[in-house]
Amino acid sequence: MATVSDITVSAAINSLSALLFLVAFAILRLQPVNDRVYFPKWYLKGIRENPTTAGPYVKKFLNLDVRMYLRFLNWVPAALRMPEPELIDHAGLDSAVYIRIYLLGLKIFVPIALLAFGVLLPVNYTGGNFNTMNDDMKDLAFGEIDKFSISNVPPASKRLIAHILMAYVFTFWTCYVLYKEYKIVTDMRLHFLASQKRRADQFTVLVRNVPSDPDESVSEHVDHFFRVNHPDQYFLHKVVHNANKLAQMVEQKKDLQNRLIYYTNKHERNPNKRPTTKAGFWGLWGKKIDAIDYYTQEIDKLSKEELAERERVIDDPKSVVPAAFVSFRSRWGAAVCAQTQQTRNPTRWLTDWAPEPRDVYWNNLAIPFVELNLRKLIMAVALFGLTFCFMVPIAIVQTLANIEYIGKVLPFLKPLINKGSVKSFIQGFLPGIVLKIFLLVLPMILMEMSKIEGYVAFSALEARSAGKYHLFLLVNVFFGSIITGTALQQLKEFLKQSPSQMPETVGVSIPMKATFFITYIMVDGWAGVAAEILRVVPLVIYHLKNIFLVKTEKDRDEAMDPGSLLWPITEPRLQLYFLLGLVYSTVTPILLPFIIVFFAFAYLVFRHQVINVYHQKYESAASYWPGVHHRILIGLIISQITLLGLLSTKEAANSTPLLLALPILTLWFHRFCKKRFESAFSKFPLQDAMIKDTLERATEPQLDLKAYLKDAYMHPVFKGGEVEMMDVEEGDDDHYLVATKRSSRRGSQAGTQEGSPEDRTGGVYAAV
Amino acid sequence: MATVSDITVSAAINSLSALLFLVAFAILRLQPVNDRVYFPKWYLKGIRENPTTAGPYVKKFLNLDVRMYLRFLNWVPAALRMPEPELIDHAGLDSAVYIRIYLLGLKIFVPIALLAFGVLLPVNYTGGNFNTMNDDMKDLAFGEIDKFSISNVPPASKRLIAHILMAYVFTFWTCYVLYKEYKIVTDMRLHFLASQKRRADQFTVLVRNVPSDPDESVSEHVDHFFRVNHPDQYFLHKVVHNANKLAQMVEQKKDLQNRLIYYTNKHERNPNKRPTTKAGFWGLWGKKIDAIDYYTQEIDKLSKEELAERERVIDDPKSVVPAAFVSFRSRWGAAVCAQTQQTRNPTRWLTDWAPEPRDVYWNNLAIPFVELNLRKLIMAVALFGLTFCFMVPIAIVQTLANIEYIGKVLPFLKPLINKGSVKSFIQGFLPGIVLKIFLLVLPMILMEMSKIEGYVAFSALEARSAGKYHLFLLVNVFFGSIITGTALQQLKEFLKQSPSQMPETVGVSIPMKATFFITYIMVDGWAGVAAEILRVVPLVIYHLKNIFLVKTEKDRDEAMDPGSLLWPITEPRLQLYFLLGLVYSTVTPILLPFIIVFFAFAYLVFRHQVINVYHQKYESAASYWPGVHHRILIGLIISQITLLGLLSTKEAANSTPLLLALPILTLWFHRFCKKRFESAFSKFPLQDAMIKDTLERATEPQLDLKAYLKDAYMHPVFKGGEVEMMDVEEGDDDHYLVATKRSSRRGSQAGTQEGSPEDRTGGVYAAV
Repeated sequence: MATVSDITVSAAINSLSALLFLVAFAILRLQPVNDRVYFPKWYLKGIRENPTTAGPYVKKFLNLDVRMYLRFLNWVPAALRMPEPELIDHAGLDSAVYIRIYLLGLKIFVPIALLAFGVLLPVNYTGGNFNTMNDDMKDLAFGEIDKFSISNVPPASKRLIAHILMAYVFTFWTCYVLYKEYKIVTDMRLHFLASQKRRADQFTVLVRNVPSDPDESVSEHVDHFFRVNHPDQYFLHKVVHNANKLAQMVEQKKDLQNRLIYYTNKHERNPNKRPTTKAGFWGLWGKKIDAIDYYTQEIDKLSKEELAERERVIDDPKSVVPAAFVSFRSRWGAAVCAQTQQTRNPTRWLTDWAPEPRDVYWNNLAIPFVELNLRKLIMAVALFGLTFCFMVPIAIVQTLANIEYIGKVLPFLKPLINKGSVKSFIQGFLPGIVLKIFLLVLPMILMEMSKIEGYVAFSALEARSAGKYHLFLLVNVFFGSIITGTALQQLKEFLKQSPSQMPETVGVSIPMKATFFITYIMVDGWAGVAAEILRVVPLVIYHLKNIFLVKTEKDRDEAMDPGSLLWPITEPRLQLYFLLGLVYSTVTPILLPFIIVFFAFAYLVFRHQVINVYHQKYESAASYWPGVHHRILIGLIISQITLLGLLSTKEAANSTPLLLALPILTLWFHRFCKKRFESAFSKFPLQDAMIKDTLERATEPQLDLKAYLKDAYMHPVFKGGEVEMMDVEEGDDDHYLVATKRSSRRGSQAGTQEGSPEDRTGGVYAAV
Repeated sequence: MATVSDITVSAAINSLSALLFLVAFAILRLQPVNDRVYFPKWYLKGIRENPTTAGPYVKKFLNLDVRMYLRFLNWVPAALRMPEPELIDHAGLDSAVYIRIYLLGLKIFVPIALLAFGVLLPVNYTGGNFNTMNDDMKDLAFGEIDKFSISNVPPASKRLIAHILMAYVFTFWTCYVLYKEYKIVTDMRLHFLASQKRRADQFTVLVRNVPSDPDESVSEHVDHFFRVNHPDQYFLHKVVHNANKLAQMVEQKKDLQNRLIYYTNKHERNPNKRPTTKAGFWGLWGKKIDAIDYYTQEIDKLSKEELAERERVIDDPKSVVPAAFVSFRSRWGAAVCAQTQQTRNPTRWLTDWAPEPRDVYWNNLAIPFVELNLRKLIMAVALFGLTFCFMVPIAIVQTLANIEYIGKVLPFLKPLINKGSVKSFIQGFLPGIVLKIFLLVLPMILMEMSKIEGYVAFSALEARSAGKYHLFLLVNVFFGSIITGTALQQLKEFLKQSPSQMPETVGVSIPMKATFFITYIMVDGWAGVAAEILRVVPLVIYHLKNIFLVKTEKDRDEAMDPGSLLWPITEPRLQLYFLLGLVYSTVTPILLPFIIVFFAFAYLVFRHQVINVYHQKYESAASYWPGVHHRILIGLIISQITLLGLLSTKEAANSTPLLLALPILTLWFHRFCKKRFESAFSKFPLQDAMIKDTLERATEPQLDLKAYLKDAYMHPVFKGGEVEMMDVEEGDDDHYLVATKRSSRRGSQAGTQEGSPEDRTGGVYAAV
């Protein structure tokens, strides 16, 4: 296995590539032409304008100030400077809490690393197991690194007591830090919710599975039901229309308009020649026609169809789905309705907090109860299949991509394939590329699976997808790397083994895989994070759009893609580092510094990105935290069980009951935290609702709540046709959620510029 | 193994003993002197008076009417005659639903038995596996019965398809019947709750973990909190005093009074001699004193102490525990408060439905949140230990009861012990008796464990105990019988095996144990149920009390012990029959008729007992049903997994995925039922609350709710000192729960005699 010098070389290479990314970032971000790629958040907030146009023309695109290049790392202090409360104001609680996960990693692993280096490294190094081995064996399975690992402690040694003791200390420390963090996040969430301005979802409950009534329409039925059962609190309701087809049309029209703009721009640049396109699919074949005329006609046709569909949806009672958004006179009334059961049949009149309007996933509002259960069952089976058999479809595709097979099916390609270079490319890269593509689309597949399961809010969908992705990574990356072979083979093997042997099988391989995981951390962690800050894909896309589509300032705004924290993807990946850190803390502590560097570096990068780049689509007030906590505890329990397995092969069998207590205590800790904190993430306490209601009545006695709530929950396609969900600003109550895309952006800019000076001062953190 | 004739003999013996019990019951119950033992329910209802005193004196004690003895089975039609709605009125919903469990057994197993006898028996019998075996092997491991079991089907035979198919049919049938039954019970419960008269617990919520406030007393704090957060609905509250010591004193005083009565009676019968007792412990040693004087003095002394303690509890603010019963103006208000979270910290101001006053377990009201979690953790570990290591303490006690050991520790007993007969008694019976005693006290131990876990209602305590007992029986009776050896050894063995081997190990033994379980069903089921109807222990105790303590009619009433359906004990035992029936339905269907006879017989007996004997301590409106449903499904899943294991040894490995689908489907069915029905057993829907409130406002606009609710939740010791909880009648609103023992009984008798003619007509079902 790897020697210390191997690791050093690998570390040097990866640090260098990370550094290269950073330098590239430092240079690119100083160019005014890239300003909207690296600081889109400030543009969206309306604080940053186009870079100064004074001076020579070239200055518009290139930064010629040499001094700025010298301080190429000065984004680091800038990223750290913004205090947390301001960060919450600036980027929302979701983002602020998300970067705390990296900080949590540091809080857990820095003390553990110090202790492990102080206690376990000497114990391991002087263990002297390898000195007693013959040279052949040494070379075969162990490297120098293993001198610092538990492998160097001979079996049945008294030294193992140190490892057991440390396992206890590490478990208690981890639980303590997790408990404190859960408490802090809960307080932050509650404080955030309490200090929020009036929001429609505070007054609103989503009612699903409204039973059909032969004599009344859905709307009347809902109205009568709540008028009777919540007489003092019921205010108004909004039925949900099935506008999925309409939404599709709107989407299509947008696409056509983009094409029209493209051709109009082309024509303007070259007024002599009218641009042409082909009438067939995607303009790829068919007879040549005038592009501008063609798309103008198409848009007109679609607009008419859209108008007809719009009328049909509104008028046709069949387009009303059995669900409604019911609003109450006070937050107290909504809190009561959301937390109680309405009727005897718990599958009807299901009430729950309405997601915030931007967060609603409209397509799933109409699924009946039994179907929902069936969908979940099918998806559970599918997830199991996907996780344990994901190699099967890949293998099939790889077979199809086989040289001989292609030759057989498409004989006319034979001469091309048989060329040496093409052949080696197909054989060498294609299988790998297929796997890579699968891994890239995996989060999307998981998201679709969650959608099929029927959740009605994007936040819930993302939470479910994150859980699925975590399972997949756990099985295929962690266990898959430890036990070679496909997951399906492992599963077979595992089922044949006794349950007490399973941890042993894993435990024995753990120390041997330390160098592999160290390399993994450096490649995926260090270099991966550095690539994140460079934003290569958005950079390219922005410039392409800039060339082909942008005409006005407004277009340039739209070409910006700030992206968002894709936490359903990044968080499960991040959990691997917690898992590795916890598993190796007692086994091969030398891995810990690599984890710590990753957490520190990622903290810096993501803090910078959250401040300057990402723009979240919705705000869930850190509702994902219970999942994060839960998954770290899964990692902790896996680490305890693998240590148990490892020690039982070390002939320290009497340590088993001692170590068995650890997972039991951890499970108990999980239950305790769940009871203690989780309700803050799903319920809204009556006391808090009452305080907010009372305060509002005192400060705004004249408030017209009806006007405020009336159209809050309207399908986005009815709001003027082109609403893009992420563009709504919270600070701006009047335009909140009823505004179309344009008015919303204008409104929010006005709002922030007039009303919130702290946002403008916030701009200094982005100044370079 | 057993031949068919062996089984026949065993069946004959057990049927005969059951018959003997029945004959004894038929004779004893006709004697007027036993009337209060066999028909206590009617006395408690005030419908039945003492048997006629006309005619010769002897008639008072013996029934001389020969004709009645001839019809010794006529209790059977009498037990069946009462229709269900009347049964619910008469004995409560808990009892009425409980006997439906036996009916459920019949509904599940009669069609399964018909199908199994029609399809599987011929398939098995013509399987011909045994014809191919040599004679030695036949004798060794298999009996005649096995010709009808799956053992007679040769490995890898196509005939096994029939078994797999039947497994599917039986699973779907069981689930279908369970679903229908759950629906019926849910409807019965909701209907029962809806038709109930006004009850204090409909308006009341139990608040626990009231945070301490330096400026306010608990009472003020509760008042202010609910006045602010439920302004329109809050009505009044009642704090809880820690009166555990006082309750102990009351209990002690009752015991002394009993002794005084005993000696007074003795003196009256023999007025010349004043009875004496001894001053020491339990009157066993010490100097001789006059018993009547002594106990009169003792009672006086205790009464004074009790009075002082009573005043201390009421006056001392430290005796108030941080819990309170909070009542609302309407059922709607209470339903809202019970189902919502009050404050940010979910461990404070915990609100839940108040149990009905008779159901409150007062001692547990003051346990703080963290301690509650800790207690549950400890009890979970203790339960695990008790279930898997229960033989260890038994073995220790058995060692201590060893001849040599006793001789060593108590040498003066040596000559006695060494006598042959004593020695053989100790060695032969003592270990068995120790085990028997342990099994008898086991439900009590489990109940104490549940109490330590901190549940605040007897119904919750019983539900928890039933779950624990079920686990114990499952591990030690079912699995313990199948795999010989103690549970701890089994566990070790199991952990060493691979998980896919476990079902095989169990599955292979299943057919071989069929005859054992048939005998078990006859001994424990048939004869056991017949013994239940005879009521030997209450019969003996009643007559003892009658001789020594009874002076007046009132005393005779008190000497009656109607007992109650001890469902936390009987229900888990009953679950074994469901388990056996489901497991053997595909393997050895010949066992099914024995199960069916048990269910039918037990249905008759318990219906009779519920009508004539048992008097429930409280009414939970069948809240135990989710547990019953859950445990039958556990049995179903065990049956599916054992069949899976059995078939995999039959070299029908390709059937595994087919059979693996069954437990998954069953689990999904469980989740589905849970979501569909369970909330009806824990929540009170707002619509129902609103209907009842509206109805009440319309019919009783003048109702003084304050007077009604004021003292409903008072610790029983404050209600005049001698309240016995079970004597409160529901029909009688005025005296409900505030009455002392005496007034309550008088009140309830008056109530039923005046107000409910159907109760009196109900008396005909008990007439002999």
